[in-house]
Amino acid sequence: MAILFHHPLCPRSRYIRLLLAEYGIEIELIEERPFERRQDFLIANPAGDLPVMIDSNDFVVPGAATIAEYLDETRGLGLDRRLLPEGPAERVETRRLTDWFNTKFYQEVSEPLVNEKVYKRYMRPGQGGGGPEMSVVRAVRSNIRYHLRYIGHLTATRKWLAGDNMTHADLAAAAHLSCVDFVGDVPWSENAEAKEWYMRMKSRPSFRSLLTDRLPGMTPDRVYADLDF
Amino acid sequence: MAILFHHPLCPRSRYIRLLLAEYGIEIELIEERPFERRQDFLIANPAGDLPVMIDSNDFVVPGAATIAEYLDETRGLGLDRRLLPEGPAERVETRRLTDWFNTKFYQEVSEPLVNEKVYKRYMRPGQGGGGPEMSVVRAVRSNIRYHLRYIGHLTATRKWLAGDNMTHADLAAAAHLSCVDFVGDVPWSENAEAKEWYMRMKSRPSFRSLLTDRLPGMTPDRVYADLDF
Repeated sequence: MAILFHHPLCPRSRYIRLLLAEYGIEIELIEERPFERRQDFLIANPAGDLPVMIDSNDFVVPGAATIAEYLDETRGLGLDRRLLPEGPAERVETRRLTDWFNTKFYQEVSEPLVNEKVYKRYMRPGQGGGGPEMSVVRAVRSNIRYHLRYIGHLTATRKWLAGDNMTHADLAAAAHLSCVDFVGDVPWSENAEAKEWYMRMKSRPSFRSLLTDRLPGMTPDRVYADLDF
Repeated sequence: MAILFHHPLCPRSRYIRLLLAEYGIEIELIEERPFERRQDFLIANPAGDLPVMIDSNDFVVPGAATIAEYLDETRGLGLDRRLLPEGPAERVETRRLTDWFNTKFYQEVSEPLVNEKVYKRYMRPGQGGGGPEMSVVRAVRSNIRYHLRYIGHLTATRKWLAGDNMTHADLAAAAHLSCVDFVGDVPWSENAEAKEWYMRMKSRPSFRSLLTDRLPGMTPDRVYADLDF
């Protein structure tokens, strides 16, 4: 069976977990704390980032974008329900938006928030552990509002983020938002279209394993696993 | 003719310029200063990043990674000299290393350096203009050393960064390094393998237009355009 090194609250790992589940690929999950910079993990991925997939032939595929392209070429190609669609224009729009969430949203929202509210709980003081820096959390809470408006803007005129079909872009966006939702920082009441799209994503069978993730000493937000929030 | 919105010292724009030149695709270059956040440019690419390609059919392709995949699928596919190679293992290694330079090297070296030493010259005070912050420049000069060792480590056992053939990874690495070289901050004497590999890259016809780039009020480092540095 293939293996995925991940962290339950790593948004890019969640993106790949959703993608694997949508393709029906079973995978063994191994939790990795990237801030520990474990030697064997750095050999698999010198960049030190999550996630890293080890395919069933022992082939190492590091990094969310590289894994997504690899899955498209080895599993998605030829499928009716290919999650990186066939046409050049659809592929550009899907990659543009997937990158938006895996890079821009990650830098402006999910990476600093998960770092402050989750990772720092499990770090030793020498690794940067401690309580959350509230100035960072406030900046994130301000940043997320325009991303939510952007999702609302896209889904007001399209069925899914990149067009008529669900793609990598929806999975990436929902994965990142789910981490923010875990700690209760998505202002859902501000955008009805974005909320309606996220309800659809959250109701998919691929999402179930994300909704049951628990971390020692942390309780997810009240509405986190609620399909009618 | 296709158009590329770029900045002469934007490392990701240089990566795409090299890629286009290697495929022999002629393109009109239009200089964009991303820090000016020009409205028409933000319509073409809401993320506000360079580069953005407008293909000859007016189709907009934003972002280096998305442009590279688009060029592979619309121009590279089927070519003998495909710059994102065919095999799954080669594609993973090429994408891993391309992403290393476009993301990790960019964050740790080329983006802060170009910002401090180039962009800030052309920004107004309200945009963040002024002299370079030397603490940032010192951090970059420290960070680049391990990247140079990594290039040396790879090219000590491989002909090119990702294997037997030149790929996207070599073009990305050389593009980022060329920006650092422009301002004279590559410690070439520290790694003979990395230097030998860069000399090969710099001698390619695709590199010529980068070596003649000039900016108002800035003189490139003495060895910048020297093929025998």
